[in-house]
Amino acid sequence: MLKLSAVSLLATSAVAPVALADDPDPLPSWNETASKKAILDFVGSVTKEGSADFVPEEERIAVFDNDGTLWAEQPMYFQLLFAIDRVKALVPLHPEWQTEEPFASLLKGDVKGALSGGEPAIMKLVMETHSGMSADDFDKIVLDWLATAKHPVTNRPFTEMVYTPMLELLAYMRASGFRTYIVSGGGIDFMRPWADKVYGVPPEQVVGSSGETKFMVRDGVPILMRLPEINFIDDGPGKPVGIHQHIGRRPIAAFGNSDGDFEMLEYATRGEGRRFGLIVHHTDDVREWAYDRNSSIGRLEKALDLANESGWTVVDMKNDWKTIFPFGGKQD
Amino acid sequence: MLKLSAVSLLATSAVAPVALADDPDPLPSWNETASKKAILDFVGSVTKEGSADFVPEEERIAVFDNDGTLWAEQPMYFQLLFAIDRVKALVPLHPEWQTEEPFASLLKGDVKGALSGGEPAIMKLVMETHSGMSADDFDKIVLDWLATAKHPVTNRPFTEMVYTPMLELLAYMRASGFRTYIVSGGGIDFMRPWADKVYGVPPEQVVGSSGETKFMVRDGVPILMRLPEINFIDDGPGKPVGIHQHIGRRPIAAFGNSDGDFEMLEYATRGEGRRFGLIVHHTDDVREWAYDRNSSIGRLEKALDLANESGWTVVDMKNDWKTIFPFGGKQD
Repeated sequence: MLKLSAVSLLATSAVAPVALADDPDPLPSWNETASKKAILDFVGSVTKEGSADFVPEEERIAVFDNDGTLWAEQPMYFQLLFAIDRVKALVPLHPEWQTEEPFASLLKGDVKGALSGGEPAIMKLVMETHSGMSADDFDKIVLDWLATAKHPVTNRPFTEMVYTPMLELLAYMRASGFRTYIVSGGGIDFMRPWADKVYGVPPEQVVGSSGETKFMVRDGVPILMRLPEINFIDDGPGKPVGIHQHIGRRPIAAFGNSDGDFEMLEYATRGEGRRFGLIVHHTDDVREWAYDRNSSIGRLEKALDLANESGWTVVDMKNDWKTIFPFGGKQD
Repeated sequence: MLKLSAVSLLATSAVAPVALADDPDPLPSWNETASKKAILDFVGSVTKEGSADFVPEEERIAVFDNDGTLWAEQPMYFQLLFAIDRVKALVPLHPEWQTEEPFASLLKGDVKGALSGGEPAIMKLVMETHSGMSADDFDKIVLDWLATAKHPVTNRPFTEMVYTPMLELLAYMRASGFRTYIVSGGGIDFMRPWADKVYGVPPEQVVGSSGETKFMVRDGVPILMRLPEINFIDDGPGKPVGIHQHIGRRPIAAFGNSDGDFEMLEYATRGEGRRFGLIVHHTDDVREWAYDRNSSIGRLEKALDLANESGWTVVDMKNDWKTIFPFGGKQD
């Protein structure tokens, strides 16, 4: 459970702007291009009473991927940077890591070598560093890390590596009666401690990957102990499954940036009534990063190829967004 | 996803009364006993601004078991009666059931014999009858069943087998800024189609046991196909796990009726600040049923023995409740 005292550690976090539904311009960081128009048209049509497209508030569910959609994901997923820092912090308790991969390479500073083991190496790294403590203790570890860790390229806190246009969009949709959910391949318990403060998304509206937990009473206190076993992978075809488990309603709008969001976009947009799908295309290698088909992180190929026939809006970051981050851009 | 057209099939459902926080008596079906006083004291203290016990609205999470807490569970769990009816409906498609247990005994009308296989027989019965269709189609099957099926003792629709005092309590807590969640050992997808209409609890606030689902596109339509495999058992120590997965906050109030709720009660009530735990004790064999330690359904022993030292309120149905069901009682 999130402790209020721990939240205050997030002194440097971005604050989601408040948009009003009748704001003359609820999306000031968006240029006047087709993407902005498509968003405004969709929200306007489903919220207009009497319109054929009208959707009652309880069905206004919008789902947002996190990595690469709400915050950056280069040069690697921020949760992986967290895991790497945890290896360094925990190695006194795990002397065996000095000789065991992927830990040994990491401890020698060879991140590339450590990650060359691919998915199994990454899963091992995450599972080992994210378990062995209570859920409450893990919350504090995440918040402590966010309060001090800096992005390796921009030297900014990770909670500032969020996209201002997307913060505006989240606030605008909520002001229009939507409930905004995060549906991410990242860890649900890695995001929950700060998602409310940074995005305005409360813990119960965060869906993500998870490890197993076990209920126990320790020293008279009931806790959920985190185990080093995978419970659920909320990625690709797992996203609609996670949405169904958590929400039990089919979203009418979905926002993503990679092929890991393809099935979520399909699930949300191929249904009755007016629907909306949007892909954030990373096209700005000066202010952010430019990558798609050939990137090992946030690879975007299938979803991009099928965006047009699916009626999905593709955001061209370079041309559609006036600003990227609250502090500007990687280089301005 | 729940179709609005299907909801209207629930013509006979109970409607949760609307309570206002400043209602002179928000719990009119409760006698003026210690149980009612304990509820009013708790809600009053955590909602009073400036009080040492004050809890902000976002942390006012209350969790309710379903079977035996919000609706009856005798002579057997209603979902099991649903599964038995499904066997009869589906046997033309499953000729092998004529000779395979537990189906063969059921089809001969020998329910006791069928269930003598215990937990494995019950799980097989539920898994086989709850899978092989899309999530949307399952919603409709549940609603169709509820629209016509009758309780074997009272001959009332199952949606009338709900406890009026608990409907008042749900409405009162919501009017007091709580979010009310169902956390049940029953199937999440068995409850979601009707919980909003009957209890005022929307799909995203229902936590329960579940089978695996698989995302697929069938005839151009994205669906979640229900598989005959267990995903999660939301009972006993699984309840705090389910609460953590779905809500990500520790509830401050929990309501149950059996040992299957023990860990949920511990998790919710053993924490900082004012907390509330309540056990519905089935003591009225005229208007409802009387059972506890020796019942195979809703067995209540450990939680009852530890209720006093845990500070949990034990509702004596016979003496604490003026009325039981919207139609009165089993016999009045």
